Amino acid sequence: MKILLIGASGTIGKEVKTALEADHEIICAGRNGFDVKVDITSTESIQEMYERVGSIDAVVNASGGANFAPITELTPEINEKGIESKLKGQINLVLLGLNHVTDHGSFTLTTGIMMDDPIRQGASAAMANGGVKAFVKSAAVEMPRGIRINSVSPNAVQESWERLESFFQGFEPVPAHRVALAYKKSVLGAQTGQNYEVY
Amino acid sequence: MKILLIGASGTIGKEVKTALEADHEIICAGRNGFDVKVDITSTESIQEMYERVGSIDAVVNASGGANFAPITELTPEINEKGIESKLKGQINLVLLGLNHVTDHGSFTLTTGIMMDDPIRQGASAAMANGGVKAFVKSAAVEMPRGIRINSVSPNAVQESWERLESFFQGFEPVPAHRVALAYKKSVLGAQTGQNYEVY
Repeated sequence: MKILLIGASGTIGKEVKTALEADHEIICAGRNGFDVKVDITSTESIQEMYERVGSIDAVVNASGGANFAPITELTPEINEKGIESKLKGQINLVLLGLNHVTDHGSFTLTTGIMMDDPIRQGASAAMANGGVKAFVKSAAVEMPRGIRINSVSPNAVQESWERLESFFQGFEPVPAHRVALAYKKSVLGAQTGQNYEVY
Repeated sequence: MKILLIGASGTIGKEVKTALEADHEIICAGRNGFDVKVDITSTESIQEMYERVGSIDAVVNASGGANFAPITELTPEINEKGIESKLKGQINLVLLGLNHVTDHGSFTLTTGIMMDDPIRQGASAAMANGGVKAFVKSAAVEMPRGIRINSVSPNAVQESWERLESFFQGFEPVPAHRVALAYKKSVLGAQTGQNYEVY
């Protein structure tokens, strides 16, 4: 299987690569180059990426960000990163990628635990996560050519715990290799319209 | 209670007004004038509205739209209406309205059944609904001064059934006055972070 992995250098992306590369061809994409350079906040950049990689069997996105800010300090402008990157960036990977994915191929996007188990300063990220989850569930019912679509919702990961603990007090972080299993399930399994929670 | 109702002329907005106006002062807002004219896709317009109405006890939004399109025809551009109106429009009503709402006041936004029970052509609307629902749940945990925030998720309404039935085959439409009760519960009740499903 030829798999396009966006965000391949991230904590989770690296583990997804490890989980899949023994048996599959992984094309790594990200802001910093790898096989293909891409900025998911730009539709032109997404289109160029798809034109370069040609036909693929699966698209896995482990990239996309949002700003953290207390709700009293969250402005429409600060909220834009979550809109442009984590939300629209991921959805545009699907809308612009549909014609590049083979029959019975798949898309796997990334949400996150904050939409289900809210934390302070997390409203913008939660918004993006919830939008992606609902899009995935809805798009799944009318994807063409047997193409599947799922998302993975990771807890905070152990590898980033030092940086994240103060935001996620009382959470039980998970190892990134456990999160990677959910992406593997999405790519190699048969389900569609799912949001795999790795909590 | 002084309640700002945006989308007051819509099928649901009219019923919300009816449900609340006997006991409360309702300031009606919308694209076509009423007491105050507002375009929720414009942050300037939202700010002008809040400056005109002064201090309020509750904000209820029953406006906001998204385009319907098959997933194979949904482009980033067609998806923008859902982003700018139903998603960002509603969230910006909160972000820009926080300082205009009295202590222990409330915001009530609108989602919709398509995020839970997907239909063809509904992915963009589902995305917006899911984003609003998750934002509400997350923002609720850190709203200042006891301000509450909820959303209402209506089924298709009987009043629009002739236009909607072909999209919502097999759904059981609900009367708009039942939907209005959920807004009343949100404004006058004590809960926060809820998404009231009227299915």
